[in-house]
Amino acid sequence: MARFILDLDGTLVDSVYQHVVAWHLSLQSCGFDLPMWQIHRKIGMSGGVLIRSLSNELGAPIDEATKKRLEDGHSREFARMRDTIAPFPQARDLLETLRRANVPFAIATSGDRNDVEPLLRLVGAHDGVPVTFKSDAPLPKPDPGLLLAAAAKLPDASQETMVVGDSVWDMLAARRAHFVGIGLLTGGYGESELTAAGAYRVYADPAQMLAHLHEVGVVTEATWNGNATATKT
Amino acid sequence: MARFILDLDGTLVDSVYQHVVAWHLSLQSCGFDLPMWQIHRKIGMSGGVLIRSLSNELGAPIDEATKKRLEDGHSREFARMRDTIAPFPQARDLLETLRRANVPFAIATSGDRNDVEPLLRLVGAHDGVPVTFKSDAPLPKPDPGLLLAAAAKLPDASQETMVVGDSVWDMLAARRAHFVGIGLLTGGYGESELTAAGAYRVYADPAQMLAHLHEVGVVTEATWNGNATATKT
Repeated sequence: MARFILDLDGTLVDSVYQHVVAWHLSLQSCGFDLPMWQIHRKIGMSGGVLIRSLSNELGAPIDEATKKRLEDGHSREFARMRDTIAPFPQARDLLETLRRANVPFAIATSGDRNDVEPLLRLVGAHDGVPVTFKSDAPLPKPDPGLLLAAAAKLPDASQETMVVGDSVWDMLAARRAHFVGIGLLTGGYGESELTAAGAYRVYADPAQMLAHLHEVGVVTEATWNGNATATKT
Repeated sequence: MARFILDLDGTLVDSVYQHVVAWHLSLQSCGFDLPMWQIHRKIGMSGGVLIRSLSNELGAPIDEATKKRLEDGHSREFARMRDTIAPFPQARDLLETLRRANVPFAIATSGDRNDVEPLLRLVGAHDGVPVTFKSDAPLPKPDPGLLLAAAAKLPDASQETMVVGDSVWDMLAARRAHFVGIGLLTGGYGESELTAAGAYRVYADPAQMLAHLHEVGVVTEATWNGNATATKT
């Protein structure tokens, strides 16, 4: 029997590329030019770590006022693209199947509450699902703090905890928390990158994971598609 | 001694993510929802193949009128983002070093001439560099036709031809042309994906490739940075 902690951006909702573009525009407006692929590889850390890590790449310190402008710029640009963000195929069904099977699950996101709430609604996770935000942990992923805070909200602490995420930071944080990482390709990482970071299994997307729940500690009679039932075993 | 065929989008200029977003917006405006990561993994093929391949993913045929609307939508959205596109670090210096060392090189792009010309200018390749466009080959990458057409424009046919690209499609096309693929991480693929597709070497970006030209058949006295010289050996 397992319990699940799921990442949100890039795992349940298709928002990674919008984050990349939003950071890129915000950086450009502050006079920084950092290639898109390098920003992409840092999504999944929180904005603060991302900026500190960008600062290293740029070889220049970034002061608090600039950091604030960068974060505000990112939030503003991201909000502008919010209408283009959709849930991944069967992301809602995955959560609904876990719910109906009484499998405990929580969502752990490096995002800010304001950026995140509209996205939770897209996958039906805005009500009754424990959610851990950036502000609930002292350090962001790949530090395990956010995952440990999410796990503390779940029952059955003696059961195995599975962490579902799209980035190597999710997989690394899972290892540090002694949880089992499950990688999805939905964030734009290659399968071998996720495997190298410690993923126990890699699936294309929530739909493929849902079809293989028996591989990750959940046995259901059927996956939920509006009329089937599922049971926890 | 070697000669080089370089891809443009994602290899010399930082434009892959803009292409992803432009296709996503164009698809959404035609009522199609395809996740960003799946679009990302298809960039580097031409628009036509991309649409045919999207049609397979969607499980629905796409008629000629819709195809045209999708291509026009992509070009329009891409043009809107053109100001955000920058050359990668030392992309210009890489070309200038090859030029000064009298190493033959050409650019082969799956793009349309109109989309591409402003980008060629960004890396100083608008003048005197042989460029092969989508329309110069019967089939797009990973078919080797575009690379063979580019190679035909270069002297020294008996010399080894190196293909520099950021996508697995570049590496696969290089193998089919019996050329040597060199992968760059600048398009957002992981190193192991490029290696698995046959890359002989993988570098982070043009700057890192420039610093390692001796590994790929070019010996220079120094790389070009405005005052140093380089010679072909």
